[in-house]
Amino acid sequence: MGTAGPVHIVGSGLLGASLGLALSRAGVTVTLADASPSALALARDLGAGTLTAHAPAPRLVVVAVPPDVTAQVVVAALREHPEAIVTDVASVKSLILAEVRSAVERGELTEADLRRYLGGHPMAGRERSGAGAADPDLFSGRPWVIVPHPASDPAGILALRTLAVDVGASPVQLSPADHDDAVAVVSHTPQVLSSLLASRLTATPESALALAGQGLRDVTRIAASDPRLWAAILVGNAGPVARQLAAVHEDLGALVAALEDAAERGPLTPGAMAAASTIVQRGNDGVARIPGKHGGVRRDYAEVTVLVPDSPGELGRLFVQVGALGVNIEDFAMEHAPQQKVGIATLSVLPDAAARLEQGLDENGWRVVRL
Amino acid sequence: MGTAGPVHIVGSGLLGASLGLALSRAGVTVTLADASPSALALARDLGAGTLTAHAPAPRLVVVAVPPDVTAQVVVAALREHPEAIVTDVASVKSLILAEVRSAVERGELTEADLRRYLGGHPMAGRERSGAGAADPDLFSGRPWVIVPHPASDPAGILALRTLAVDVGASPVQLSPADHDDAVAVVSHTPQVLSSLLASRLTATPESALALAGQGLRDVTRIAASDPRLWAAILVGNAGPVARQLAAVHEDLGALVAALEDAAERGPLTPGAMAAASTIVQRGNDGVARIPGKHGGVRRDYAEVTVLVPDSPGELGRLFVQVGALGVNIEDFAMEHAPQQKVGIATLSVLPDAAARLEQGLDENGWRVVRL
Repeated sequence: MGTAGPVHIVGSGLLGASLGLALSRAGVTVTLADASPSALALARDLGAGTLTAHAPAPRLVVVAVPPDVTAQVVVAALREHPEAIVTDVASVKSLILAEVRSAVERGELTEADLRRYLGGHPMAGRERSGAGAADPDLFSGRPWVIVPHPASDPAGILALRTLAVDVGASPVQLSPADHDDAVAVVSHTPQVLSSLLASRLTATPESALALAGQGLRDVTRIAASDPRLWAAILVGNAGPVARQLAAVHEDLGALVAALEDAAERGPLTPGAMAAASTIVQRGNDGVARIPGKHGGVRRDYAEVTVLVPDSPGELGRLFVQVGALGVNIEDFAMEHAPQQKVGIATLSVLPDAAARLEQGLDENGWRVVRL
Repeated sequence: MGTAGPVHIVGSGLLGASLGLALSRAGVTVTLADASPSALALARDLGAGTLTAHAPAPRLVVVAVPPDVTAQVVVAALREHPEAIVTDVASVKSLILAEVRSAVERGELTEADLRRYLGGHPMAGRERSGAGAADPDLFSGRPWVIVPHPASDPAGILALRTLAVDVGASPVQLSPADHDDAVAVVSHTPQVLSSLLASRLTATPESALALAGQGLRDVTRIAASDPRLWAAILVGNAGPVARQLAAVHEDLGALVAALEDAAERGPLTPGAMAAASTIVQRGNDGVARIPGKHGGVRRDYAEVTVLVPDSPGELGRLFVQVGALGVNIEDFAMEHAPQQKVGIATLSVLPDAAARLEQGLDENGWRVVRL
């Protein structure tokens, strides 16, 4: 049993338009609204939904506007659509709920209105924004966190869970506080540390940047994210993010002190090696807890490393032979060596398959890097 | 004109054994030494070189031992091989030079001995260590930083440059201070921030870890590195690393203060949005300065995103069709959605080729995610 429409989406940016495309494809009636007539027309033209004139009353309203204006749009939607469940997609949740509750205190909403609201957060996005980047598969396989409050109508929880499944997402339920603590550590703190590291590169000589390897590239990839959106997210989840960052700040301060001591008194200064080693060891322990690709416990894959000439079709030849050997690639990374016409491909496979894969690739003339 | 052997390699771990394999393959006579007889025998059995009994005097000695014992082994090599150029491969350079110079002050070496020493740092490695992980292609396409001091013999610089080219590396020359400043920012600071972030995950509930996306995985990948080796590197380059980390510490402290203020006084507190936005914006500016794959200026590639079923041969089919369309893949990333049997492949290609690739993949039945 799928989503009962009409679904009304307020905000036709990346998330709103992608949701409209996905629901429309699933046969659900979608109506759209946006403060910008041109953004709205673009989303409609892409097939994300119809405009609202003469539309029947929505069963579900999804507010997909930037986090700093989400609460006021949720309040307006609850007033405008007195029969509808109202949810939102913002990546911060406690603040929005508090603002919606304060509208009840101010008498703008009733307690019955509040029951019709529940938060949501599809863990999906792109580095690009706007309806032009919309994609009906954006939510496919991603968690959609459903964030009810104690008074939320159970029918709303069911409706949002159904919608998430309809667009290919995996519904997960958390309280507002647990959601905000979770995203502070898995999303917001990584963004800040990546940005802080990348900001060091503004003053780095080119001769140093030329030594950059894959490690720097990995750690700074998300530093390319949108500053305005991220400022609203970080400030909107200020408490949990500040707690995580304060802990990092304290650990970092202790390491700086130990290294300054070592710089002044020499590398054998008591405590310096232990301080550095402890931080790297604790990082080992933490990274091992990140779940593997199917959401379960992280698996230890075997890695097979192959040199790949940098010309069209070579990666294709490689993957064909991997497939012909009956080996599934669990993960894949490609590193290009600077100033060389060769790539270093690392294929992660189940441990059982590694030896067979290496031998098979050898026999087909690939340059396998042995471990 | 290649390297004139014999080359004597002290230390038969990952770097020493890989260098021995690469030089042996290039036809250079290599002799090996290691404090551990079993490690030495393993490297010899792998083909990295011969043992030293009855060997002719080396022309070049490469010290490939952990950074905290490199200087003493360099001093011993300069004394033992009075005609040879001596270099090392440690990832910190000023400290080692200072320790070698102090051996001159103590009268263990002459000024003439010091002229025969120059530092080196091949920017190559793996997450695994030991001769068992050795690979003659380890240096292929990587920078090999040549780090002479003002008194270094020009013949030594030429010899090391030749050796680097012989094993496929790209020689780059920097002063010890410039080298140490460079690796502090492009290698050592990323390691510390990745480790600090990953260490937050030791106390994170599993329900939060289940929301982890590609961003967290990218930022924490290098957090799996060896704590003992990294402690020696960080302490060995304590001054430059402490300077970088102190700057990060200061920026982070300012952001924590702004967010704590916002948490207490509300998201519209003056200054909070600007503080958060500035950090992300500076990160945008910094990451844009990282050079592209061939060591030149970063190129803007177009990205084509395709959904790939998670079964053997599917990636192969994809790459074959990309190759058949005559499109070269400049970069590739694969993301697996949690709890779904589908992968999201992102292919970076030259902007000219993107539309043709998308159309070609469409025509072959691939699910292309449109931007």
